[in-house]
Amino acid sequence: ATRCRAVCEAPVFGFAVLLVILANAVLLGVDTYSGVAAEYHEVLKRSEDLCVTAFTVEMALRLGAHADRPKAFFRDPWNVFDLVVVSSAFVPFLRENTTLLRLLRLARVLRTARFMPQLRILLVAVGRSLPGTVSFLFVGALILYVYAMVGWICFAARDPEHYGSLGRAGLTLFLLMMMDGLGDAVHAGLAISPLSILFYASFVLLASFVLVNVLIGVVLNALEE
Amino acid sequence: ATRCRAVCEAPVFGFAVLLVILANAVLLGVDTYSGVAAEYHEVLKRSEDLCVTAFTVEMALRLGAHADRPKAFFRDPWNVFDLVVVSSAFVPFLRENTTLLRLLRLARVLRTARFMPQLRILLVAVGRSLPGTVSFLFVGALILYVYAMVGWICFAARDPEHYGSLGRAGLTLFLLMMMDGLGDAVHAGLAISPLSILFYASFVLLASFVLVNVLIGVVLNALEE
Amino acid sequence: ATRCRAVCEAPVFGFAVLLVILANAVLLGVDTYSGVAAEYHEVLKRSEDLCVTAFTVEMALRLGAHADRPKAFFRDPWNVFDLVVVSSAFVPFLRENTTLLRLLRLARVLRTARFMPQLRILLVAVGRSLPGTVSFLFVGALILYVYAMVGWICFAARDPEHYGSLGRAGLTLFLLMMMDGLGDAVHAGLAISPLSILFYASFVLLASFVLVNVLIGVVLNALEE
Amino acid sequence: ATRCRAVCEAPVFGFAVLLVILANAVLLGVDTYSGVAAEYHEVLKRSEDLCVTAFTVEMALRLGAHADRPKAFFRDPWNVFDLVVVSSAFVPFLRENTTLLRLLRLARVLRTARFMPQLRILLVAVGRSLPGTVSFLFVGALILYVYAMVGWICFAARDPEHYGSLGRAGLTLFLLMMMDGLGDAVHAGLAISPLSILFYASFVLLASFVLVNVLIGVVLNALEE
Ligand code: NA
Ligand code: NA
Repeated sequence: ATRCRAVCEAPVFGFAVLLVILANAVLLGVDTYSGVAAEYHEVLKRSEDLCVTAFTVEMALRLGAHADRPKAFFRDPWNVFDLVVVSSAFVPFLRENTTLLRLLRLARVLRTARFMPQLRILLVAVGRSLPGTVSFLFVGALILYVYAMVGWICFAARDPEHYGSLGRAGLTLFLLMMMDGLGDAVHAGLAISPLSILFYASFVLLASFVLVNVLIGVVLNALEE
Repeated sequence: ATRCRAVCEAPVFGFAVLLVILANAVLLGVDTYSGVAAEYHEVLKRSEDLCVTAFTVEMALRLGAHADRPKAFFRDPWNVFDLVVVSSAFVPFLRENTTLLRLLRLARVLRTARFMPQLRILLVAVGRSLPGTVSFLFVGALILYVYAMVGWICFAARDPEHYGSLGRAGLTLFLLMMMDGLGDAVHAGLAISPLSILFYASFVLLASFVLVNVLIGVVLNALEE
Repeated sequence: ATRCRAVCEAPVFGFAVLLVILANAVLLGVDTYSGVAAEYHEVLKRSEDLCVTAFTVEMALRLGAHADRPKAFFRDPWNVFDLVVVSSAFVPFLRENTTLLRLLRLARVLRTARFMPQLRILLVAVGRSLPGTVSFLFVGALILYVYAMVGWICFAARDPEHYGSLGRAGLTLFLLMMMDGLGDAVHAGLAISPLSILFYASFVLLASFVLVNVLIGVVLNALEE
Repeated sequence: ATRCRAVCEAPVFGFAVLLVILANAVLLGVDTYSGVAAEYHEVLKRSEDLCVTAFTVEMALRLGAHADRPKAFFRDPWNVFDLVVVSSAFVPFLRENTTLLRLLRLARVLRTARFMPQLRILLVAVGRSLPGTVSFLFVGALILYVYAMVGWICFAARDPEHYGSLGRAGLTLFLLMMMDGLGDAVHAGLAISPLSILFYASFVLLASFVLVNVLIGVVLNALEE
C-alpha cells in the first residue's frame, strides 16, 4: 500500500495519466472522421484498448494506495467518478450500445477536470452562487413565461409560426434574449400593432438585465477566490 | 381571526398556495395548444374553476386573518394586488372579453412573485437605481432622437425605407443598438456617402456605453443587497 | 438686470424653456412625416416661428440678467452655445440651405442637455477617461490596421469583395468587431485556408477585449461621480 | 557615442521616427488599392526606399548611442525587434517573396507599439493575467470539446453538414459562442429532438460565462495599473 501511495503521489504519475487522457481525447476526435476511422480501424481499436488498460492499471494503483483506509478513497468525489467511469468499460451491456459507449468514452476525457485547478475554482464559484443564480433563473423563467403568454395572447392569431403555442412563443423569445432575429420579430410585430415595440423593448432590457446579473454574480464569486 | 392567522402563517399554507399557482400556470400553458385545448376542454375548464375556488378560499383566509385590523391588510401592496386579481374573476363583464380574461388569468400567475425573494431584491434594486436609470434613459432617448434626425436629414431621400420618417429612423437605430442589421445598414450607408461610417461607428459606441451603464448601474445596486 | 436675473433663476422659467424645447423637438419629428408636413404646413410654420420667438425672448432675458457683468455670461459654454444656436436663426444665408437649417433646428433640441444633470456627468466622465480611452482607441486602430493588412495579404486574391483593399478589409473587420457576419466570414476563410480560423478567433478576442476595456473604463469613471 | 545618445533621447527624434512609421503605414495602405498602386508605382517605390533609408539611419544612430555598452542595447526587446525588422529589409531572399516582403513591411508599422504606453500596459496586463487566462481557456477548450463530441454523437447522422466530424461540430459551436447562427442551429436541433434546446441553452450560458470571465479578468488586471 505504501509503495502504491508513493507511486500515486509522484508528479510523473499524474503527468502520465494526463497524457493518456489527452491521447484518449485525440483518439475520440479522430474517430469522428468516418474516412480515417474506417481506414485505421484496427490501429484505433488497439490504441483504445491500450488506454483502457492504462486506466485500469491507474485505478488499481489508486485503490492499492488506499488499501488500508478504503473510506478515505470514497470520500473524494473524483475518485468515485473515476472508478465508475473506468470500471463501466467492462460492463457487457454498455459495450453493445454505441451511443452509451461513446458517452462513456467521453466521460473518460472529463477526468482531465481533476488536473485543472481553474475548473475547480469555477465549479466552486458556480456552487457558491447557485442559490442566488437559481433564484435569478426562476425570475428569468417567470419573465419568459409572462412574455410568452402575452405574446401568445397578442400575436397567436396573426403570427402562428412564432407565437402559435406557449412553447413556440417561449422559443422565439429565448432566441431574442440571445440577440438573434430581433429585427425580423420587431418588423413582424409592428405590422400587427405599433405597441409591440414596447413589448420587445421591455423584454430585451429585462432579459439582458437578468443575464448580465447572473453572469456578473458568478464572475464576482469566481474572482474572489 | 387568530385561527385564520395561524393557518396563513403556516409554511404549509404558503407552499400549497404556490403549488396551486404553478398548477394554474401549467393549465394556462396547456391552453395555448389549441389541439389539446379542444380535446380536454371540459377537464381544463373544471381544473381552472378548482384553482379559482382555491384562490377564493385563500383570500377569505387571508382576509379573516386580518379581520381585527383591516388597515394592516391593505398596507401590503401584494395583498391589494391579490385581492384585485382574485376578486376580478367574478366580474361578469371581464368574463366575456377573451383577451381581458386571459390577461387576468396571467395576473394570477404573477402572484408567484410574492414567493420569490430574489424578485423582491430585483424590484428594490430597480427602484433604487430608478432616478439614475431614468436620467440615463433620457440621455439615451436624446441620443436616439438626435441620430434619428441626422439620419433622416442625410438618408431620407436615398433610403426612405429605413429613414423615411423620424419613427422609421428611430426603429432602424434601435435595432442597430441591439446589434441587429449593422452590416446591411453600413453597406447601404456607404453607397450614399463614406462619411456614414462615422455616423454608425459613433452611434454604436455611444449606444453601447449608455446600455452598459444602465445595466451595470442596476446590477451594482442589486449586488449591494 | 436684477429683475431679469430673478426671472432667469425662477424654476418656472427653466421649466417653461424645457417645455418649449420639447415642443420644438416634437415639431421637428412631425415634420419628418411628409404627408402630415404637407397638410399642416401653415400650422407647423407658425408653431416654429413661435418657438424661435420664445427662444429669442429667453436669450434676451439671459443676456439682460448678465448685463452688468457680460464676461460671466460667456464663461459658461452652454450660454455661448445657446447664443450661437438661437441667433443663427436670423442669418439669411442659413435660412435658405435646407440641410443646414435642419441641422440648426436640431441643435436647438440639443439645448435640453443643459437640463440633464446625468448628461453632464456622462460628459465629465467621458472627458476624464479621454486620455486612457484615446490611447486604447489607438491600440484598437493599430489592431484593426494590422489585421486588415494581414487579411488583405492573405485573402485579397481569393475574396476581393471583402478584402480587395485596406478600406474594404477594415470595414469587414469593423463589422466583425460588432459581431456581424462572423459565420459567413469564417466559412469563406476556411474555404481558403484552415489557418484563417486563428486569424478570426484572435481578432474577435482582441477586439472584444479593447471594446470592453474602453466601455468599462468610461463606466467606472462615470459611476465614481 | 554621447552625441548619438543626445540625438536619440531628444523628443524631436522620437517624434520624427513616429512620423516616418505613420507615413510608411499610409504608404502600405495606399499600396492595397491596385489602381492607385499601378498609376503611382514609381512614387510609391521611391517613398518606400526613403522610409527604409530613414529607418536605417535611425538604427545606426541608436546603435551608435549604445556603442560603448552594446549589451544594454540588446537587453531591451524593442531594440532587438527593431534591428531584426529593419536589417531584414536587406536580405535578398526576402525581397523576392511578395508575401514575406509584405509581412515584413507590416512589421515595420508594428514598431509604433514602442510609442504607445497604453499598449505596453495592455501587454503587461495580458502577461500578468496569462496564467489565469490560459487555464480558463483550457476550461473553455474542454467545454467546447465535450459539447462538440456530444453534438457529433447526437446530430452527426441527421445534420452532417454542421456536426459531421469533431472539427465541424467545434466550428459550429465556436460560432454559436460568438452569438452567430443560434436561431438556425436551435431550429435544426428541435427538428431532431426537443432535448436539443437543453444542449444549446447550457452551452450558450457556459460559453458566455467563460468568455466574460476571461475578459473581466484581463480588464481588471489592466485597470489596476
Ligand atoms: Na448580431
Ligand atoms: Na447575433
